[in-house]
Amino acid sequence: MDRYQKLRQQVFEANMQLPKLGLVLFTFGNASAVDRTLGVFAIKPSGVPYNELSPEKMVVVDFDGKTVDGILRPSSDTLTHAVLYKHWEKIGGIVHTHSTYATAWAQSLRDIPNYGTTHADHTTVDIPCAAPMGDEMIKGDYEYQTGFQIMDAFKERKLNYEETEMVLVGSHAPFTWGKEVAKAVYNSAVLESIAQMAYLTEQIRIDAPRLKEALIKKHFERKHGKDSYYGQ
Amino acid sequence: MDRYQKLRQQVFEANMQLPKLGLVLFTFGNASAVDRTLGVFAIKPSGVPYNELSPEKMVVVDFDGKTVDGILRPSSDTLTHAVLYKHWEKIGGIVHTHSTYATAWAQSLRDIPNYGTTHADHTTVDIPCAAPMGDEMIKGDYEYQTGFQIMDAFKERKLNYEETEMVLVGSHAPFTWGKEVAKAVYNSAVLESIAQMAYLTEQIRIDAPRLKEALIKKHFERKHGKDSYYGQ
Amino acid sequence: MDRYQKLRQQVFEANMQLPKLGLVLFTFGNASAVDRTLGVFAIKPSGVPYNELSPEKMVVVDFDGKTVDGILRPSSDTLTHAVLYKHWEKIGGIVHTHSTYATAWAQSLRDIPNYGTTHADHTTVDIPCAAPMGDEMIKGDYEYQTGFQIMDAFKERKLNYEETEMVLVGSHAPFTWGKEVAKAVYNSAVLESIAQMAYLTEQIRIDAPRLKEALIKKHFERKHGKDSYYGQ
Amino acid sequence: MDRYQKLRQQVFEANMQLPKLGLVLFTFGNASAVDRTLGVFAIKPSGVPYNELSPEKMVVVDFDGKTVDGILRPSSDTLTHAVLYKHWEKIGGIVHTHSTYATAWAQSLRDIPNYGTTHADHTTVDIPCAAPMGDEMIKGDYEYQTGFQIMDAFKERKLNYEETEMVLVGSHAPFTWGKEVAKAVYNSAVLESIAQMAYLTEQIRIDAPRLKEALIKKHFERKHGKDSYYGQ
Repeated sequence: MDRYQKLRQQVFEANMQLPKLGLVLFTFGNASAVDRTLGVFAIKPSGVPYNELSPEKMVVVDFDGKTVDGILRPSSDTLTHAVLYKHWEKIGGIVHTHSTYATAWAQSLRDIPNYGTTHADHTTVDIPCAAPMGDEMIKGDYEYQTGFQIMDAFKERKLNYEETEMVLVGSHAPFTWGKEVAKAVYNSAVLESIAQMAYLTEQIRIDAPRLKEALIKKHFERKHGKDSYYGQ
Repeated sequence: MDRYQKLRQQVFEANMQLPKLGLVLFTFGNASAVDRTLGVFAIKPSGVPYNELSPEKMVVVDFDGKTVDGILRPSSDTLTHAVLYKHWEKIGGIVHTHSTYATAWAQSLRDIPNYGTTHADHTTVDIPCAAPMGDEMIKGDYEYQTGFQIMDAFKERKLNYEETEMVLVGSHAPFTWGKEVAKAVYNSAVLESIAQMAYLTEQIRIDAPRLKEALIKKHFERKHGKDSYYGQ
Repeated sequence: MDRYQKLRQQVFEANMQLPKLGLVLFTFGNASAVDRTLGVFAIKPSGVPYNELSPEKMVVVDFDGKTVDGILRPSSDTLTHAVLYKHWEKIGGIVHTHSTYATAWAQSLRDIPNYGTTHADHTTVDIPCAAPMGDEMIKGDYEYQTGFQIMDAFKERKLNYEETEMVLVGSHAPFTWGKEVAKAVYNSAVLESIAQMAYLTEQIRIDAPRLKEALIKKHFERKHGKDSYYGQ
Repeated sequence: MDRYQKLRQQVFEANMQLPKLGLVLFTFGNASAVDRTLGVFAIKPSGVPYNELSPEKMVVVDFDGKTVDGILRPSSDTLTHAVLYKHWEKIGGIVHTHSTYATAWAQSLRDIPNYGTTHADHTTVDIPCAAPMGDEMIKGDYEYQTGFQIMDAFKERKLNYEETEMVLVGSHAPFTWGKEVAKAVYNSAVLESIAQMAYLTEQIRIDAPRLKEALIKKHFERKHGKDSYYGQ
């Protein structure tokens, strides 16, 4: 029996959620999940349409992005996932999409301001937009460096990846993550919604104020604080 | 037999309408309905996905938000519903969503101007946006105070909750209500449509005029006045 | 056998297209079709949800809007339809919706400029926005006067209702018509698409130029001119 | 057996994808595919609704647009397709739509700036918007001249039709192509997505910068360069 079967099934199901949630066109996205005991993660194969995917087609790779099991070539973004899994040890799953509104913010090279409680329900800070990397790094090991580009954005802003599970890669598109890959998928949909609402907020009122600190704290903590009372 | 069965069924059906109408993502919304004879209302459990809901999972609480019947924890917004049921005695149902356009207006801290007959068919006034509450109240009994925040917005503007069945909670999102919970659901969809049209109207013409009084009156009264002639 | 059966069936089917095409929310729209031999038209009953409609529920009225056959009250907009059928003798069907983009233009009290060939495929002129009527007329026989408001907009601009089969009623929403009711339904969807594209065109380029005359003429005539070569 | 059967089947399937991808309303689009051995291409018949199409209804024409096989009149845009097949010898399929965002850019007479990697994954240059043709040409053989209008835009900008498989015809709408008609369909959906994202990018940041050259090169080459590593 395939020791990676469960992992592949999980990653397959996560990938299949992305078009259903309206987050990917054709093959513009990928989801992965890690098995830290085995030291591997499974990821979508590169350029394969969603309706041709199956659990068996998921590719199992190690934290250097080398294929451990599977016939197909893994996603071209595999090294970005690998770097994040290696350095952020509490992540269980990662999702990358080119969802419309989040990508537009990424193309604008702007952080998404925290304008309301929908945003504060998920993180207290603005959604960071990592600055595009230098030309030498782009020419080099691009996807590998994208992982460090994301981590650098978090270091510069002193953010915690366990609290803020989403980022915009400047000029490119969003990445999200979570303790489980299902949470990473959820975060991708939430980010797209927050991105659309923030865009509309600025259109409706050009000088819309950032959410006040007391509300940010209240909404984040009622869902995620030690005395949280949201959910079951 | 469960004396709350009918109420639960009604609230279950109302909640299930919200994702169908495109008004909620994941669990970002809730509907409730009251039984004034029994002095209770039923509401969606907190954080449970819509596709896992059933009539039995609806939680029955009293007007202080204490659970009377049910195993799950009620919506984290329960106290807001409780306050409104207690003080606005002719309300039969309440709906809260984070629908995209209405939430963007709430985040902009702006009332939605009455720009056309689609709006005037439902209320004569601008849709009020309640100002965010003070920090002390946020730190205190937040959801309870949200109920008063809504009622205060109506008092300040001298509005009648029986005529205007919708409000934006500033920085947060919309609440709607009605004599029956089905009407509250209807109002949530109407508000989202009005919010989108008002946004577009301002984009198309920055100085778009508010609807003239004679048209406001005509459209509201042909649907809701004593000589109304709309519907059967 | 019911002499109105065919007419009712036709009007029922036309009404049912409106929610399918995304042009109406709840009951915010109506379609009618005329039988000029019998001197009547059939129209949607007032305020009845689309999923409860049936051919039998369509109401048959004369050109003064009086019910000739049917149990339900006809659409509150019946007199507007009646006036148009009476004065524009080559119209076979009429549709009224509150479709999002067309309504936003109506609320802006602006004609929709002819910005491209999609527009010119259907009419050479800007889509007229009829000015809101005077207060006395609003207080009087409002729906009847709406018919004249539409005809006046055509007279003022010297438009031909056989060439231009769509109008915005200022502050209110669109009406469309055609030789057959199916064409009126088609025109409602086309108008919504044109309205969205014109809105986006102005957002992308604030001083976007009106389509040049030679292109307007070419596109309109290849579809509708005497030497037209579009279609079968 | 029909020697054109395979070609017709292919063109039929390509056309049926267009409404599924949300790229056409009613009959506002057409797809064609070429058989260079036989010196013909098959194209959608003019003005026939998508739900009435069948493989047999596709019209087979030569490179002068004359019908070789088929009963129906071919698309009114047939001569544009014919010119492109004749002069761009490596094209296998062409698609024309009036998709909303791409058409709005065409109506704005603006090239779509390359704002991000989603764009650079498909071409290194801005999407060209061909200037409207002169009045004499419009009055003359309009659809034939549209083919040259497209080719002229590529000549002026020194673009390669094998690298850039999409164009906006100014004041009109987009055309896309590819080695296979399936790729032309894919490109139509990609163009619509790029057009929407570019529009939003400018709304979010009025002075959004064009994507830096190193990123353009990296993204295009990892998908299309000689050392590409995207896909299987």
